[in-house]
Amino acid sequence: MPCSSIVSAPSCAFPFRSTSASTSSITPTAILLTKRTWKPRIETASLRKSVVRATVSIEKETPEAERPETFLRGVDEAHSSSSVRARFEKMIREAQDNVCSALEAADGGAQFKEDVWSRPGGGGGISRVLQDGAVWEKAGVNVSVVYGVMPADAYRAAKGAPTDQKPGPVPFFAAGISSVLHPKNPFAPTLHFNYRYFETDAPKDAPGAPRQWWFGGGTDLTPAYIFEEDVKHFHTVQKRACDKFDPTFYPRFKKWCDDYFYIKHRGERRGLGGIFFDDLNDYDQEMLLSFATECANSVIPAYLPIIEKRKDLPFTEHQKAWQQLRRGRYVEFNLVYDRGTTFGLKTGGRIESILVSLPLTARWEYDHKPEEGSEEWKLLDACINPKEWI
Amino acid sequence: MPCSSIVSAPSCAFPFRSTSASTSSITPTAILLTKRTWKPRIETASLRKSVVRATVSIEKETPEAERPETFLRGVDEAHSSSSVRARFEKMIREAQDNVCSALEAADGGAQFKEDVWSRPGGGGGISRVLQDGAVWEKAGVNVSVVYGVMPADAYRAAKGAPTDQKPGPVPFFAAGISSVLHPKNPFAPTLHFNYRYFETDAPKDAPGAPRQWWFGGGTDLTPAYIFEEDVKHFHTVQKRACDKFDPTFYPRFKKWCDDYFYIKHRGERRGLGGIFFDDLNDYDQEMLLSFATECANSVIPAYLPIIEKRKDLPFTEHQKAWQQLRRGRYVEFNLVYDRGTTFGLKTGGRIESILVSLPLTARWEYDHKPEEGSEEWKLLDACINPKEWI
Repeated sequence: MPCSSIVSAPSCAFPFRSTSASTSSITPTAILLTKRTWKPRIETASLRKSVVRATVSIEKETPEAERPETFLRGVDEAHSSSSVRARFEKMIREAQDNVCSALEAADGGAQFKEDVWSRPGGGGGISRVLQDGAVWEKAGVNVSVVYGVMPADAYRAAKGAPTDQKPGPVPFFAAGISSVLHPKNPFAPTLHFNYRYFETDAPKDAPGAPRQWWFGGGTDLTPAYIFEEDVKHFHTVQKRACDKFDPTFYPRFKKWCDDYFYIKHRGERRGLGGIFFDDLNDYDQEMLLSFATECANSVIPAYLPIIEKRKDLPFTEHQKAWQQLRRGRYVEFNLVYDRGTTFGLKTGGRIESILVSLPLTARWEYDHKPEEGSEEWKLLDACINPKEWI
Repeated sequence: MPCSSIVSAPSCAFPFRSTSASTSSITPTAILLTKRTWKPRIETASLRKSVVRATVSIEKETPEAERPETFLRGVDEAHSSSSVRARFEKMIREAQDNVCSALEAADGGAQFKEDVWSRPGGGGGISRVLQDGAVWEKAGVNVSVVYGVMPADAYRAAKGAPTDQKPGPVPFFAAGISSVLHPKNPFAPTLHFNYRYFETDAPKDAPGAPRQWWFGGGTDLTPAYIFEEDVKHFHTVQKRACDKFDPTFYPRFKKWCDDYFYIKHRGERRGLGGIFFDDLNDYDQEMLLSFATECANSVIPAYLPIIEKRKDLPFTEHQKAWQQLRRGRYVEFNLVYDRGTTFGLKTGGRIESILVSLPLTARWEYDHKPEEGSEEWKLLDACINPKEWI
């Protein structure tokens, strides 16, 4: 079983490609399959439709006293000024710094606690968590860098190569930033964002083979109550970031987001969406690096103005309980469907980084049904029937 | 795809057999597999080791205004005085009545809300939930009866028959009682119990073939704080019920319970165990029916004396928060590992019945570590290293 280290933050650098735009139901199966030594059924269709299923487990992480300059290994480090992997790591670490500074300033009191770790085979991560602040009850902003190895089968499938060749396992690199921010005030929405980059090395016995790479990620908003101006603002900032690169991006990635954050057993979405994309490689690589950077830089302008307006609104016990019920849905989505989380749980990643996405508190009432026409009902309706906000 | 109705309560009548005593990791895979039309890899080894994987989905339930005399279909109903399935349904419905009466009396105020439903193809269920009582914040006691159809492959595997025969789909019957009781006081433990019976009909094209049947279930205790006398009492009642039938039952089912309620990604158990068994058919059927009855009747004597002692103890905010953290673990186990829950979510069962097992409230703190030697640490230690309580 070719094993290696792999992602340790929720959705942070999850390296496996999905079959289609809707990725919500595929990956947990894939991972369980390989974990249980079922033979993966690999589709040898087009690259975009290929499914990469890898047999992976996790190296135990080592706590580090200080943040290293880079989590890249020696050879990569030597090219650190120019390679995409190096520039992506730089980008996500800067984004982590910027987001955490802005959140601390907005919270006005609490500070992020930082945990740094590395893995013997290379890579590592920085988890930052702010808990029980004035504004946020729990806010996690993680980066991680992963060096891993995927089985040859998976790589052959991704490349569409003939199946009678037997190349060795394919090393890969993945890096990502992942964040979930849960405010206290029920009128202040939860935010999630995650941007990641994935690259394979050439297989050892085919040194000339081209590298595969792709980008994934998104930013989405999960309020307990709808303020239409907030949701419009949030989506407008996402659209503006998308439109700088391709006018088809926003409509496509908005729908992808609605499809991905679907709680199938409830028939409702986790929240009011935003953008989500995965497996993105059919554009210029530099353009996509700029796009991911633009998206990461749009998080604070999309989110903080909403928080400023809502963080101090008075609320009732009833409204707090409804927020807690929606937090329960957040838990259901993350533990049952989220690719990064379910993958992390099954491969033994750094559990506290993976589950930092869960809210500080959540609630489940039996058979709760909001009164038709109520504000709670309107939120639920928008989660069941996704809307065009702009 | 041969589909039919199937279980709708958590673990209540989950009809699929596991490969071994430790069933915690197998079934979600199996179900996902078949849901995604992967060809099940059927093991044709011995009956005890066989894996039954079925392609199932759920008929939508219909609410009923009144409890029917029986959920059995006509043919079964005609034999209702003698058949095991009829006597098992009677037993679980009596157990539901008795447990609910005893809990209402102990709560001293709140009453169970009842939902009754049926399915067009036969079967149905009764969910009873007590919420926000004086003693329990959430208590669910469900029964359900399921008529379903499993693919021929699965039945052949279970029987160890040659694979070149192609019999039709095999109808099955399943019935069960399932309950989770979450008290408010952090010194009063959560209880879960579940007893179920499964039976196949003879396949349509092989009317003389013998029926398969088995029993499963268990009762387990999940405190936030250890009172050794409570845990000893609880396990003693379980052992007494077991010892009436077979001296090997308690040690075997105690270990099975410790193995099953394992939160793999935490390396710890959900609670302090009890008994758990599944696939039990290598004893006299009448004996096992009596054993399941004895177990169900032992729930109240095992649990209520503990509640009476602990329900009014004074507690601190810190102790309440620890209880809430352990409730978070309960949520993690149920959503990620529990066979009945994960199966129910993936097949579209009655969602409110399935998730009634989740606590009213739960909590996740980043990187929480109880102080060594503290009462919280002792509980965690016992969840990591299961103890012999008697």
